[in-house]
Amino acid sequence: MNVAVLAGGVGGARFLRALTETADPAGVTAIVNVGDDLDIAGLHVAPDLDTVLYTLAGLSDEERGWGRAGETWNALDTLRELGGDGWFALGDRDLGLHLARTQALRVGEPLSAITARLAAAAGLELSLLPATDDRLRTWLETASGAFEFQEWFVRRRHADAVGGVRFEGADQAGPAPGVLAALDEADLIAIAPSNPYVSIWPILSVAPIRAAIENRRVPCVAVSPLIGGRAVKGPAAEMLDRLAGGTTPAHVASTYAGLIDVLVVDPADDPADAPVRTVVTPTLLDEPDARRRVAAAVLDVARGPVPA
Amino acid sequence: MNVAVLAGGVGGARFLRALTETADPAGVTAIVNVGDDLDIAGLHVAPDLDTVLYTLAGLSDEERGWGRAGETWNALDTLRELGGDGWFALGDRDLGLHLARTQALRVGEPLSAITARLAAAAGLELSLLPATDDRLRTWLETASGAFEFQEWFVRRRHADAVGGVRFEGADQAGPAPGVLAALDEADLIAIAPSNPYVSIWPILSVAPIRAAIENRRVPCVAVSPLIGGRAVKGPAAEMLDRLAGGTTPAHVASTYAGLIDVLVVDPADDPADAPVRTVVTPTLLDEPDARRRVAAAVLDVARGPVPA
Repeated sequence: MNVAVLAGGVGGARFLRALTETADPAGVTAIVNVGDDLDIAGLHVAPDLDTVLYTLAGLSDEERGWGRAGETWNALDTLRELGGDGWFALGDRDLGLHLARTQALRVGEPLSAITARLAAAAGLELSLLPATDDRLRTWLETASGAFEFQEWFVRRRHADAVGGVRFEGADQAGPAPGVLAALDEADLIAIAPSNPYVSIWPILSVAPIRAAIENRRVPCVAVSPLIGGRAVKGPAAEMLDRLAGGTTPAHVASTYAGLIDVLVVDPADDPADAPVRTVVTPTLLDEPDARRRVAAAVLDVARGPVPA
Repeated sequence: MNVAVLAGGVGGARFLRALTETADPAGVTAIVNVGDDLDIAGLHVAPDLDTVLYTLAGLSDEERGWGRAGETWNALDTLRELGGDGWFALGDRDLGLHLARTQALRVGEPLSAITARLAAAAGLELSLLPATDDRLRTWLETASGAFEFQEWFVRRRHADAVGGVRFEGADQAGPAPGVLAALDEADLIAIAPSNPYVSIWPILSVAPIRAAIENRRVPCVAVSPLIGGRAVKGPAAEMLDRLAGGTTPAHVASTYAGLIDVLVVDPADDPADAPVRTVVTPTLLDEPDARRRVAAAVLDVARGPVPA
């Protein structure tokens, strides 16, 4: 079965792991957010792509929730000792990946080709794609001003309430090679339990990707990132509350209006008033059994009705 | 006593350590080669400045001869595992310094100001200056083509015989702030036992620096980088043989024609025919006592005759 998955970082990575543990990884294509990529001293850092890569390669630090297990921090410690701006936590091994990516970008290789090479080098069996090879940056509008994603999320610890999001570069951004083909050849399109606004909307801001999903001939299923109206990690609940008016499955579904046929929700949430069919199953992706149940519920949607 | 020192990497760093162990470091200004600086994935690496900094801060790996002691290599190992181009050995702590420098360069701080900050953060008491804040790159002309310094030195292991050197950017390069003042206020100008062609000539390729030394009112003393006609480290002897016709003190002195009044040479070398006064003393800078003798011989020149 071919599954095309829209995914952000941590939630996306854990969902992709569930899916590739349950279905044949060779049929899975991950279309990953690059709106929170950033530039550190000229190095191109792609946190969501890297979180997916580290998680699926078994390299991630599960306890900390980001970065690599067994990481060392000598570069960052030195940077800080020397009075540099060490606001973004770069591990030494993580830096090696950023160096490899940036070397290749600087000689003109597209991000998608680099990502495919890195994924292969890390032993990944699924197809890992950035949503776009073009520059795309998520900006958060707050009462304190507009901030790029990582500035808001990491440096300001997402303390500023978000009044709106916008995606710099979306007008000029095209889908990365392979993205439209994956959506076209999919038996199922899935949206990972990621933050709709800052993980999935940047992907959808690339107009041909959004159009391909709007015009899908196969079901599209989203997994809600909320459990009991709260996010497992990150500011999704606060953002839904403020930007969609609440944190029920109906509010989650409203962020994907016209794009999904099914929403997978946790038993802790009330599916009443959801504008799409809901499937109720525990959605916490912590244990292998729980992961497999969520993946099975999602894959089962492919056997359901096809959109009109 | 104020001493202005022209210096390259390893030989320069060891000589500066000898000098600052013997004279008041506050009076010493190091004017350091930046012709072998390089760009790695956009990071600005300045090997000679860093070797001086690490050596004087007591951070260098004496055994290996470059880089930091107790260094780790996780970024480089990862870069290589991922198929990146890991030809230049970047340690993790070393990377932290390159990140700090590059961050500052990218917001417009000049290299000289950054270097002063880094030197202060590392506890250095002497003044550490790049020869220029402008882009200057040493190129080696060989039978296999022209190569930038590190390409020739590291990647090709300086195996190609050098037919000539040139300094890209020298026409446009000005002395870094502080360089001409240090030369003007010096009681003594010294040239470290560095490779004349690839460590000292790049500094002298900045025309106002060369002019300031040509028009000096105080003695200028060079320490020969050769002992018994051989280099302690690196390709200085091969280059002198090929470009100056030999490896005697006379040949070394010929690379500094019009610029030096005294050449300090090792007892293993024959000072006959040298066009300047020679001072004979063991020049190996390995032991503290040996270092102090060389430094004392150099400082003693300040008490000698002043150039006409």
